[in-house]
Amino acid sequence: MLVFEIITVGNELLDGTVVNTNAAWLAKRISELGFVVRRYTAVGDDIGEIASAIREAIKRGADWIVLSGGLGPTFDDKTLEAVAYALGRKLELNSEALDMVRRKYESYSRETGREIKLTRERVKMATLPEGARPLPNPAGTAPGVIVEAGEVTIVALPGVPREMKAIFEESIAPVLKSKGGLKTARVVLKVAGVMESTAAPHIERVVREHRRVYVKSHPKGEERKPVLEIHLISRSESLKEAAEEAERAAEKLRKLLEEEGGRVEVVHHHAADKQAS
Amino acid sequence: MLVFEIITVGNELLDGTVVNTNAAWLAKRISELGFVVRRYTAVGDDIGEIASAIREAIKRGADWIVLSGGLGPTFDDKTLEAVAYALGRKLELNSEALDMVRRKYESYSRETGREIKLTRERVKMATLPEGARPLPNPAGTAPGVIVEAGEVTIVALPGVPREMKAIFEESIAPVLKSKGGLKTARVVLKVAGVMESTAAPHIERVVREHRRVYVKSHPKGEERKPVLEIHLISRSESLKEAAEEAERAAEKLRKLLEEEGGRVEVVHHHAADKQAS
Repeated sequence: MLVFEIITVGNELLDGTVVNTNAAWLAKRISELGFVVRRYTAVGDDIGEIASAIREAIKRGADWIVLSGGLGPTFDDKTLEAVAYALGRKLELNSEALDMVRRKYESYSRETGREIKLTRERVKMATLPEGARPLPNPAGTAPGVIVEAGEVTIVALPGVPREMKAIFEESIAPVLKSKGGLKTARVVLKVAGVMESTAAPHIERVVREHRRVYVKSHPKGEERKPVLEIHLISRSESLKEAAEEAERAAEKLRKLLEEEGGRVEVVHHHAADKQAS
Repeated sequence: MLVFEIITVGNELLDGTVVNTNAAWLAKRISELGFVVRRYTAVGDDIGEIASAIREAIKRGADWIVLSGGLGPTFDDKTLEAVAYALGRKLELNSEALDMVRRKYESYSRETGREIKLTRERVKMATLPEGARPLPNPAGTAPGVIVEAGEVTIVALPGVPREMKAIFEESIAPVLKSKGGLKTARVVLKVAGVMESTAAPHIERVVREHRRVYVKSHPKGEERKPVLEIHLISRSESLKEAAEEAERAAEKLRKLLEEEGGRVEVVHHHAADKQAS
């Protein structure tokens, strides 16, 4: 099972100006495709910080590292420099990437009727770590980047959500689908009238008796006016098997919580490998 | 200047079920109080993962580590065990914390007219790393926790946003205010009609000439139909000084972008040390 780490880059994450929806989207999509996201990290626009986050993820044994942010034309877009630095590689002008960037500006020139030259800032988006390959950007200018280094595959995507998603769906999702991740089934119990601390031993019992089902309770009300959302999640090579396991565990928990006086509603989500939006 | 790291705990972050608004809220609040958030990390409900994230943050020299999530009564609430493990300390029943928890359940018992016993799961919320102090939870049951270890202060807050915010405002914000962080001024330029790649050299020039001002551009449209939001951020012990620096830099950038044919709107945000909601 491939293990992923996500690294999102941008000072705007660290001062809370921007909520990290990119990390959530990537985490959801990678999980849907059947792989494990072990950790995600937000760092600032700083070569040393980005590179140290990459090196630490490699050291923890991540199989894939997906970065988002810092691929643009401005001085603080430093992700590719940081990837090169982390891997001890040089940066070099990549002719395939330069072609992608050049064609974009040629088409913008035609559309606007004004000549748009390949300035230093525009060429920067085609300057990749040695050995990297550019990934076409169907929604913007800066190509994505993929680079393999020993056992680890590093992917760098733009921070603009529309561009990040487009490159992921076009170039990364098909690769991951071909690797055959696990299928996930999820049953959600919505429970009114049972405190989380009352549910706790019952959840623990169900987890003990269904080792392959992960159970997570989310308190939605307060302890004294309790509303719980309890997710039972099971993963398997077969969606049917995963669904049956999650349903059996959910049925047991439902009974135990009803005996405690809970009002329980059962919702099923058996995620197929759908395309996220 | 104290450096913070934030560690948010929960498998629901890593499968993208939940967007990490807790990290964004904490980052924003800590920045408003004048301190630097250098990194935030999301890890799963796993003692080893949480403890390794804590140890790595200590190794990077964080002054404060703020954790959110994993303080509740269920089997997968493992944050305090992980803090103890990371610091090489024992867990022990904390009598002050037990008192807080007991009083909560006594009051819930009175309200509901049903006896609510101090079960193992409820006592767990009062079992803290050696040397830790509990922080009252004005919005829920599980106390927050603060523990000092050498140079580093570790704070653990619940994952339920209402409880996290309440404990932070009541017990942490006053401590940080007394430490006198830097004031932040921010000027935002909303620019239509200039590509980010065209703005890039002008931004770089302004950054070079105003070393204490950080400039960040956020493309909001597409490169060919460009709308940029450019933030100019300055920090200083005096809000007036910070604001003047940010405004001078913004004025210069505004002129340069207007010369490129941009339509520029200027918005000022000079954050006082207000209470966040």
